[in-house]
Amino acid sequence: MSILIRNGRIITAAEDYVAEILIEGETVSAIGGSLDVQADRVIDASGKYVLPGCIDPHSHIEPPATAAWGGGYGCDDFTTGTISAAAGGVTTLVDFCVQWPDQSLREALETWQEKIERAAPVIDVGFHIAVTDAREGKRLKELESLVDEGITSFKFFMCYKGAYMVDDETLFSSMQVAERTGALIMVHAEHGDSIDLLMSQAVAEGNVSPIWHARTRPPELEAEATNRAIQLAHVAGAPIYVVHVSCRPAAEAIARARADGWEAWGETCDKYLVIDESALERPDGAKFIYTPPPRTRDHVEYLWGALARDELSVIGSDHVSWHFERQKDGKDDFTQVPNGAPGNENLLHLVHDKGVRQGRISLNRMVELMSTNAAKAFGLYPKKGTIAAGSDADLIVFDPEREHVLSAETHHMPSDYNLYEGTRVVGAPELVLARGQVIIEDNRFVGKPGSGAFIKRARYGEQLRNIA
Amino acid sequence: MSILIRNGRIITAAEDYVAEILIEGETVSAIGGSLDVQADRVIDASGKYVLPGCIDPHSHIEPPATAAWGGGYGCDDFTTGTISAAAGGVTTLVDFCVQWPDQSLREALETWQEKIERAAPVIDVGFHIAVTDAREGKRLKELESLVDEGITSFKFFMCYKGAYMVDDETLFSSMQVAERTGALIMVHAEHGDSIDLLMSQAVAEGNVSPIWHARTRPPELEAEATNRAIQLAHVAGAPIYVVHVSCRPAAEAIARARADGWEAWGETCDKYLVIDESALERPDGAKFIYTPPPRTRDHVEYLWGALARDELSVIGSDHVSWHFERQKDGKDDFTQVPNGAPGNENLLHLVHDKGVRQGRISLNRMVELMSTNAAKAFGLYPKKGTIAAGSDADLIVFDPEREHVLSAETHHMPSDYNLYEGTRVVGAPELVLARGQVIIEDNRFVGKPGSGAFIKRARYGEQLRNIA
Amino acid sequence: MSILIRNGRIITAAEDYVAEILIEGETVSAIGGSLDVQADRVIDASGKYVLPGCIDPHSHIEPPATAAWGGGYGCDDFTTGTISAAAGGVTTLVDFCVQWPDQSLREALETWQEKIERAAPVIDVGFHIAVTDAREGKRLKELESLVDEGITSFKFFMCYKGAYMVDDETLFSSMQVAERTGALIMVHAEHGDSIDLLMSQAVAEGNVSPIWHARTRPPELEAEATNRAIQLAHVAGAPIYVVHVSCRPAAEAIARARADGWEAWGETCDKYLVIDESALERPDGAKFIYTPPPRTRDHVEYLWGALARDELSVIGSDHVSWHFERQKDGKDDFTQVPNGAPGNENLLHLVHDKGVRQGRISLNRMVELMSTNAAKAFGLYPKKGTIAAGSDADLIVFDPEREHVLSAETHHMPSDYNLYEGTRVVGAPELVLARGQVIIEDNRFVGKPGSGAFIKRARYGEQLRNIA
Amino acid sequence: MSILIRNGRIITAAEDYVAEILIEGETVSAIGGSLDVQADRVIDASGKYVLPGCIDPHSHIEPPATAAWGGGYGCDDFTTGTISAAAGGVTTLVDFCVQWPDQSLREALETWQEKIERAAPVIDVGFHIAVTDAREGKRLKELESLVDEGITSFKFFMCYKGAYMVDDETLFSSMQVAERTGALIMVHAEHGDSIDLLMSQAVAEGNVSPIWHARTRPPELEAEATNRAIQLAHVAGAPIYVVHVSCRPAAEAIARARADGWEAWGETCDKYLVIDESALERPDGAKFIYTPPPRTRDHVEYLWGALARDELSVIGSDHVSWHFERQKDGKDDFTQVPNGAPGNENLLHLVHDKGVRQGRISLNRMVELMSTNAAKAFGLYPKKGTIAAGSDADLIVFDPEREHVLSAETHHMPSDYNLYEGTRVVGAPELVLARGQVIIEDNRFVGKPGSGAFIKRARYGEQLRNIA
Repeated sequence: MSILIRNGRIITAAEDYVAEILIEGETVSAIGGSLDVQADRVIDASGKYVLPGCIDPHSHIEPPATAAWGGGYGCDDFTTGTISAAAGGVTTLVDFCVQWPDQSLREALETWQEKIERAAPVIDVGFHIAVTDAREGKRLKELESLVDEGITSFKFFMCYKGAYMVDDETLFSSMQVAERTGALIMVHAEHGDSIDLLMSQAVAEGNVSPIWHARTRPPELEAEATNRAIQLAHVAGAPIYVVHVSCRPAAEAIARARADGWEAWGETCDKYLVIDESALERPDGAKFIYTPPPRTRDHVEYLWGALARDELSVIGSDHVSWHFERQKDGKDDFTQVPNGAPGNENLLHLVHDKGVRQGRISLNRMVELMSTNAAKAFGLYPKKGTIAAGSDADLIVFDPEREHVLSAETHHMPSDYNLYEGTRVVGAPELVLARGQVIIEDNRFVGKPGSGAFIKRARYGEQLRNIA
Repeated sequence: MSILIRNGRIITAAEDYVAEILIEGETVSAIGGSLDVQADRVIDASGKYVLPGCIDPHSHIEPPATAAWGGGYGCDDFTTGTISAAAGGVTTLVDFCVQWPDQSLREALETWQEKIERAAPVIDVGFHIAVTDAREGKRLKELESLVDEGITSFKFFMCYKGAYMVDDETLFSSMQVAERTGALIMVHAEHGDSIDLLMSQAVAEGNVSPIWHARTRPPELEAEATNRAIQLAHVAGAPIYVVHVSCRPAAEAIARARADGWEAWGETCDKYLVIDESALERPDGAKFIYTPPPRTRDHVEYLWGALARDELSVIGSDHVSWHFERQKDGKDDFTQVPNGAPGNENLLHLVHDKGVRQGRISLNRMVELMSTNAAKAFGLYPKKGTIAAGSDADLIVFDPEREHVLSAETHHMPSDYNLYEGTRVVGAPELVLARGQVIIEDNRFVGKPGSGAFIKRARYGEQLRNIA
Repeated sequence: MSILIRNGRIITAAEDYVAEILIEGETVSAIGGSLDVQADRVIDASGKYVLPGCIDPHSHIEPPATAAWGGGYGCDDFTTGTISAAAGGVTTLVDFCVQWPDQSLREALETWQEKIERAAPVIDVGFHIAVTDAREGKRLKELESLVDEGITSFKFFMCYKGAYMVDDETLFSSMQVAERTGALIMVHAEHGDSIDLLMSQAVAEGNVSPIWHARTRPPELEAEATNRAIQLAHVAGAPIYVVHVSCRPAAEAIARARADGWEAWGETCDKYLVIDESALERPDGAKFIYTPPPRTRDHVEYLWGALARDELSVIGSDHVSWHFERQKDGKDDFTQVPNGAPGNENLLHLVHDKGVRQGRISLNRMVELMSTNAAKAFGLYPKKGTIAAGSDADLIVFDPEREHVLSAETHHMPSDYNLYEGTRVVGAPELVLARGQVIIEDNRFVGKPGSGAFIKRARYGEQLRNIA
Repeated sequence: MSILIRNGRIITAAEDYVAEILIEGETVSAIGGSLDVQADRVIDASGKYVLPGCIDPHSHIEPPATAAWGGGYGCDDFTTGTISAAAGGVTTLVDFCVQWPDQSLREALETWQEKIERAAPVIDVGFHIAVTDAREGKRLKELESLVDEGITSFKFFMCYKGAYMVDDETLFSSMQVAERTGALIMVHAEHGDSIDLLMSQAVAEGNVSPIWHARTRPPELEAEATNRAIQLAHVAGAPIYVVHVSCRPAAEAIARARADGWEAWGETCDKYLVIDESALERPDGAKFIYTPPPRTRDHVEYLWGALARDELSVIGSDHVSWHFERQKDGKDDFTQVPNGAPGNENLLHLVHDKGVRQGRISLNRMVELMSTNAAKAFGLYPKKGTIAAGSDADLIVFDPEREHVLSAETHHMPSDYNLYEGTRVVGAPELVLARGQVIIEDNRFVGKPGSGAFIKRARYGEQLRNIA
């Protein structure tokens, strides 16, 4: 099967030019000014952008809920969850494989491998390993061994005390492992001890409405943990990636490290770029209980600037597909509401509309933030993350003028709500290709499960080549 | 008894003028252009500065050594230790009363009260309470009660794991107590978990010489803890004071907080302003094993600038009077050497010579750093910390041209070594008065034990008045 | 004549204590806890602050108007203009003696000396020399000679092209003179060339309403000139003082210099701390045509922070007493309206109410900004600028609870308008003493012209002592 | 003629991958994983980088000397000068067409067009117009008209008083023209008035050796002018590009503007990245008299960091090919020595060796700094500045291991000296292609004059496409 995309404006992290793209099989075989070839399908992309498919490095498909949140799982699986991602232009995601207490890391990984066997993905899927219990040191050896299997990033929670949180000794020891093995450290950075105390105190005083989710997690406590993790990683010699940065002082901690040339990456998510704290005061405020919480408007504005200035370098979704009615609504207090919100489908819609169209970031920067940088950080480049000869044909034909309304009624996510219900955006994917197959066309899924597979990622700083 | 000091150049935090000072009893009764009075003693201070006595807020007299350091105590007591302080111009000090594990705070305080009964001080002495074990919460109530007794500052160690270190939950809870009661939080800010690990790893690899004391305590780990404590205190609403700041990034963390108007204070010590890391590589490097360790020369220079710009606001001694031969020398590895060094006698000598004479800080700023700011931070102002009518007559007649050589042979400290052995300075106290009594004259102690006493301090932000 | 002030809370730049102040003749003869003396008058200051009198370093009494503004003079003289200043707590001012084109500097100075002979001041008055024409170099020698006569600050306008503006060669040469002679360089920092062009363009396009005064003088052009003057002064080795800083980027330029330890001072004025740009859009917007123009609210807030952080160090009035009806109202376009506004009477009212009472600056800092720093910058300290034995008895007994309404109906300024008409403040002087005489009592002038005189100021960095 | 480059590692501003490049005629016709084509020449680039040709935006070929410097011209022309450039990997340069006093801009441009007719270039050549005399405004209209002819950048000198320097009114007016017409403002930023004075004073005092070139041009005066130009451009709404940034404070001025999202670009040159001030104290110090002067080592280090952090975005050569013996040597004082030095041949050698190999910048960043950013700033992208289908085949096959010694004996520049005489670098071009022709092979020129031509550039922010 071959496809020729003609007349499109090819946008990569640094380029912006018009040329033809020839796809043969799963990869881009050639890019030419005017290729003299026959192809099985010819796509005319006049007036459209051709973008590398987005990479969502922050995904929680089929998420388990903690006991405090009522247990059970979220409402998607790797088929439905990757279809919604693809509908939004995502062609690769990296999901968090989360260790349970006392579970070996290998068992944890097997659980996730089973998930993608049970519900085959439509785009490629990698895994981060989220270590929640390594205290006696026996897990550190195991951690090393996973790197060879393409699990080249280790995630740690610095909060959720009593559930996922690790202590600083575990964190620092794991950073030393990462340094030795070429892995990337990832942290959910909030200061768990104090938040735990503030939450108990709030509940004890009857402060239980959703807005208290934000009031018990002030920006300072995110900034603190962000800075702590960065300093420890630097001492250990490991690169670090801070997930879902939501506020100015946390972004500033990353900016300081980067200005000194440290290997520190910051990611933010669409929700922190669009929604502010006031959403928690709505009657359906529980929908917006995700962590870190939405912040005040000045933080929202700061984050856009931080993206433009390369203080933050990646945008992920932190997609967690809870069902509002069954899982979030009607809880006695905010501490019982599962944290997180669905969203892998609307990432690109929002970043293009609120970012590029409003002049906050350039088109090139959008691609860098949504694709290239994640590919480089997570060992996927140049197989993924750009449009180049030899790379996977993970592409978006993007119509910058197409109007689209974000809504639970039309989205592909199984969740019964959309954080941005009713928001009208301009600019949307027209076609999405995953490894050479058109899987989304006019907002409909036209592929079949199994077009995606587990992807082994390269070590930090190394390239993932197609050819051995 | 009355004393009249004439013709001196009176230097305070903001003033610089010539006038007469009349002392009646313990206090300054009047300052006049030309007071028409008789006094029991008239001191001609022509060509001299008259300074408020220094306040050393960071003192460990008769220090206990941990088990790892061989146990026992340092070599001074509250008589000898305050004589040496006074010889250097210190007229008030605040010592750390350190809780032992499982000990009640009140018992700890009683132990320190006994120390000053057993060996009467020659200058006034206050106490900070150093909380090392409050985990079950039962100590927090006790903490509150101490504030009424004039113990209005709480100290926490964020390192020395297994000995003094507290966890973040204790720290944050105590900050909430401080907020409620009007106390000041003090922290020894270094990241204990990682340092503990780095030390074990160094020893395991045979890296045991004194320089490894510095290599296992990099500046990033001090900066991390500094920032952490400041963020937590700000969330708790408590003022915070970071002791012995030794490096640029830690000072910068304080500077950022201050620029935002937060109640954050930074202290440094003479040793960080004079000595650099290379001292640890000398044959007698163990003398320089104090914590944080001496840093590289660029940090030393930065700290002077930080003092000038009011990023750092107080200079203390962190005086710990170990005996080199008996306690520091001949240990197998650096982890067995008691941390700390003697030094309350040379604070003013060095700050005047290296700071004022070298143009790094002004005379006014020297007074602010050595006296006024500590008085204001620790509830001693205006009884202490300045030269004003009604204030205690704690004064130094300082000869800016007097030459002095720092040496164990001539210092008053019982320790057998001086960190600055052989250093020649210009500028030294000629007379030191404590509450109206001349106790030091020409570098000799001319008073008698008991001229000083325990002093109850006011709450943070409140004044300590002479008159009820 | 002797006066004893009892029970007052004495506030200086660094102190805050209760004591008695004895005034004999023109100076403070003693400060005592409890002075056992008889005095001709005893003032009970219970519940009041006793402050050093304010120093207004930025004054234009009896101001000449340029031809473009219609010529003539403002509506006060050195008697009325110093009475209004005194009513607001000002006990010393330094006025600008402005050279006319082709006039010798000495002639300029004589003109100003005549002014204070003609209309005797009620407080002490110094002069800055404002050089507007020195191009051929012949004025530079003259400039040197004025320093010996106590004119130790040289002012330059970097805007008002065709009138006061000097070129950079003149400015730089004069800075070299200042460096040699110990004078302080002062600049009105705005980029004249571009402003002149923007004004012509605005008028040509019919944009003539008062708001265009602000639109043709954007903050960047003030920041530019501020930075330029500071860099030139640093290269020349001269200290520099930037008058009426109105906006964030100009303050930041000063802050950068200060952080590097350069001798750079920044002054702002009450109007930039209270009024914002929207005032120019009022029907009586011409009242607010002063230069630099009022700025947007974010600049106003920034300036308060800059004062707190010591980026800016002095508050002056830039008092120019135009008459609204006769001089400012009814002009065809904004370029014809005399620049400036009356205001030396309300400086302290506003800084206390908007600054101290609203928690933006401390009481000590208010004194430093309004008195001590100006005294130190302009060679008046310690004769002026503090409350100390031997200093001039220039004092304010300030009632922090006294209510006062700012209004043209009640103010002492001859102008027919008050910028703050109707503003109610809390805190006002109860008594004002100038060199030992009570001249203001309960907002009434109770002295007589001539209680003030010309004051010779010391060179930059030197002290002005009472005694030869 | 077709060329196929195989097995090379293609490096662009964002990419790094292995693929084949097919060149047909003057452009890259296709890039493919494995192109199944025949080509006239096949180049095996195994183990080599394939880079886009460098763009040197700062060139003075056949430079005129001012009267003070002895008049006459430098020793190269557009044939020899572009051969040396090409030997160093430069495939496009933009030269400064400098207006003489009273000359019309069009006449100036014609002079430069004649130069390239007389001595045909081997690579493409654009022109900036350097305006030195526009005071009466008559040149501003002319300026506008040049933009249509592809002269889309206007250069101004803020120093060289009496020769090239323009006043601020001219500068600001021209910026308004640039804003209207879509041109880019370029400035040589140094404060001319003060430098002129400092130079006269130095000469008057007998300080005439080359080191006084640096002493009379301190960094503050470069930083000042840099900041001034940026502020003025921002007010005028024009984009600005600061040439040859040599010192930290100038780079910081640019960094501040960029952090605020302003359109400000900074360029530095190889000489500021390698040579320091001490070179002026060598016996042959006159070789190093270029402007700004070489700076102290801390500035050199800062500039590398500024390049890495995107404070500075372009590296140019500021090539001025004087002959040492005939033109620079033997002058009475430094003010008579022509400013400038040859160097377009060694730019890439040095940036690769000192930058990439020493870990200061990445390979991608090197390409961005040496090619892509200049293409984007100066209206050459995507025709120039990258390797993409449809772009000009301006390419370097670069051998990262090739050793090369910089020397006047072997360089192609007609000048008798090389600033880096004897410096051994690792990494050098093996082949250089200009619009599809191999013109340099193994450090020999193998093309013929005329392979380059004048290139019309697009307006600022617009693209230069191959196809109409």
